[in-house]
Amino acid sequence: MGLLIKNIDLLSMNGRDKIIYNTNIYIVDNKIIHIGEERQDIEVSRVIDGKNKLAMPGLINGHTHIGMSLLRNYADDLPLHDWLTKAIWPVEANLNGEDVYWGSLLSMVEMIQSGTTAFCDMYFFMDEVGKALMESGMRGILTRGLIEDQDNPKRKLEETRELFNNWHGKGNDRIKVMVAPHAPYTCSSDFLTKTIDLAKDLGTGIHIHLSETKKEIEDSFKNHGKSPIKHVYDLGLFDVHVIAAHCVHVDDEDIDIIAKNKVYPVNNPGSNLKLASGFAPIDKMLKKGIPVALGTDGSSSNNNLNMFEEINLAALVNKAVNFDAVSVPAYTAIEMATINGAKALDWDDTIGSIEVGKKADMILVDMDKPHLYPKHNLISAVSYGMQGSDVDTVIIDGKIVMENREIKTLDVEKIKFMAEKRAKDLIKR
Amino acid sequence: MGLLIKNIDLLSMNGRDKIIYNTNIYIVDNKIIHIGEERQDIEVSRVIDGKNKLAMPGLINGHTHIGMSLLRNYADDLPLHDWLTKAIWPVEANLNGEDVYWGSLLSMVEMIQSGTTAFCDMYFFMDEVGKALMESGMRGILTRGLIEDQDNPKRKLEETRELFNNWHGKGNDRIKVMVAPHAPYTCSSDFLTKTIDLAKDLGTGIHIHLSETKKEIEDSFKNHGKSPIKHVYDLGLFDVHVIAAHCVHVDDEDIDIIAKNKVYPVNNPGSNLKLASGFAPIDKMLKKGIPVALGTDGSSSNNNLNMFEEINLAALVNKAVNFDAVSVPAYTAIEMATINGAKALDWDDTIGSIEVGKKADMILVDMDKPHLYPKHNLISAVSYGMQGSDVDTVIIDGKIVMENREIKTLDVEKIKFMAEKRAKDLIKR
Repeated sequence: MGLLIKNIDLLSMNGRDKIIYNTNIYIVDNKIIHIGEERQDIEVSRVIDGKNKLAMPGLINGHTHIGMSLLRNYADDLPLHDWLTKAIWPVEANLNGEDVYWGSLLSMVEMIQSGTTAFCDMYFFMDEVGKALMESGMRGILTRGLIEDQDNPKRKLEETRELFNNWHGKGNDRIKVMVAPHAPYTCSSDFLTKTIDLAKDLGTGIHIHLSETKKEIEDSFKNHGKSPIKHVYDLGLFDVHVIAAHCVHVDDEDIDIIAKNKVYPVNNPGSNLKLASGFAPIDKMLKKGIPVALGTDGSSSNNNLNMFEEINLAALVNKAVNFDAVSVPAYTAIEMATINGAKALDWDDTIGSIEVGKKADMILVDMDKPHLYPKHNLISAVSYGMQGSDVDTVIIDGKIVMENREIKTLDVEKIKFMAEKRAKDLIKR
Repeated sequence: MGLLIKNIDLLSMNGRDKIIYNTNIYIVDNKIIHIGEERQDIEVSRVIDGKNKLAMPGLINGHTHIGMSLLRNYADDLPLHDWLTKAIWPVEANLNGEDVYWGSLLSMVEMIQSGTTAFCDMYFFMDEVGKALMESGMRGILTRGLIEDQDNPKRKLEETRELFNNWHGKGNDRIKVMVAPHAPYTCSSDFLTKTIDLAKDLGTGIHIHLSETKKEIEDSFKNHGKSPIKHVYDLGLFDVHVIAAHCVHVDDEDIDIIAKNKVYPVNNPGSNLKLASGFAPIDKMLKKGIPVALGTDGSSSNNNLNMFEEINLAALVNKAVNFDAVSVPAYTAIEMATINGAKALDWDDTIGSIEVGKKADMILVDMDKPHLYPKHNLISAVSYGMQGSDVDTVIIDGKIVMENREIKTLDVEKIKFMAEKRAKDLIKR
């Protein structure tokens, strides 16, 4: 039962080739088994015409809080502290599992429609996100955000163990579970150590917020005499694979630590701009060989989950920050959203590029849109001009999840209706 | 012969109301004649159902070079000097009128599809842009960029006079012509004075690049002992209405001059980021009461003409630059792209907001897209989440130019084909 994508231009992101023109991609089950000339010996049950399309790896959202879509456009243009303490946290305290289920589905619709195939989520009621993942056909990492609760920290850790036992490896290995201490400023050293022990015990990684705001750095130096990154490094956090969201305010020593350890920074340019967190030294980190990934953060601080916008922001903003028009060129920005994302999610053995042997997570984008003409350079077009709405077809784990912009796995009308209903109900509770 | 848009939510940008829910808009000929309850005494020949849509003013692109779309994605990721001298200028030297015609039409397709109804263009072969404007139904200002030519400066000024005589007021007043000395660093004081005299003589305004790069400022202090803005102010440039593109590197004295004169800065965040020009002090200018407008610049330094992206960039980038999450809030960013754009183009008596008596330049955006749910705040949704592809219907001067995303006035397939052909031919010349 094979799928053939015929006569298509390919941006494989394999690190060697730029664009391969007019090629053929064969997918059997969930794997890419051949790229190149047509083959009669591979049985195919379905052929997709690649004319005027470009195949590229599905985008990888390295850091998000997808249940938060219910709070999109709810409380913008507030100072960060008021936004969190007066708007977001009081409402989040009333969230229940059903809210998170519908919010997560709304986010998955948006992600699929804009070409994202995999993501790393940190939120609550993660069983609901697992259910939504099974239904949508997406690939994702579930992490239950752990803010230390002095009353029963042990219970919170046990919840993550249960989440791992219930979901890790489910959906034909589309789902993984990691441990997620929220941040060094919301978890004590003792609690962080326990999360490291748990991750080691489960043989999995850690997802954490690190060095997002100036205040966090100042407080860390006050409380621990060192930066957040040095602090968690000294605690042994980097003994396991770590997805480090933000890393905005990092100094040279922090960057050295990141470069020498299994820490994978996820840059969230949209959120860092909107929340006025600042500009991360992306160019410097990339030049040190750190495969910086990209994420959207939650859609209440963005306000969307469109990775093409993050690619565009990463390619644009760093040029002005560094007064250097060559900083973060087009190809690099796409790497951040594809292969670097796969590295961050510890999934680069199977996704992040279109190569024989890898799983078939890819998108076909419509290159026939006026804003992508003329076709001097397709890599420029993807990085500087492409819109999420240019995504035509989404394939995840070998299955067609969207075709001609129609999502096959989810009831979009019902999801919009239910998300709206839950959102309005939530803020009245 | 009236047009009724029925039961629609309205973001009028009239400076008083935020969103008016479920209202009716009546257009007769090219004017808005009533907003509010249904009226039996107004004869309508066409009714548009406003369900799930939001009406807002057509977006105004305050500074662009639309013929440059032929060079989109042509030479990215080069240092600014190499980009201009080795890539863009040598190719532009071979441009002809037919290139500019098809490039301009390609740009108009893109602008209409992303909700722009009016623009201010600076380029060459402006008669061709005029022809394209007549066909597309858009509203625009034609300005022929004048780089001083020592051999025959007088001839260049005469060309602008001819352009004015041929096109100013054409298309039911959809077209205006202004005088466009390219920049103080490409025009001598003497030549600038001649352009001021010409503008006064014609009774029109001036469109000029001002204070775009650090180098320009340094050179101006070296050559004139003052900033570019002080320099042209002293020459009397601000005796006429001036559209001042960029204004990135402006000091407090420059801002004072701008605030006290008829100078209208147009911020081009996408281009300023991509060319590493820097960050304009938008928040400061706005707080001084300067109605800063927005533009895309040419699509070879952006790489598109999508004003929703510029709104989003303006709302995001200034927050991080000022370390202030309240800087350039959602409504302000939309003002920049609508009513402030109209002020910059000296057209605020007729466009820039949806009000009785103004001309009917408006767009209907589809609010039923998943990425715009839930609907807590439509102004946030427009500023932080809306995509150009969410524009459903475009009305310019009372005429439906696009409906259900289908452009009524132009042959999109032919334009894509011809623009591609001219672009490939151009770079081989």
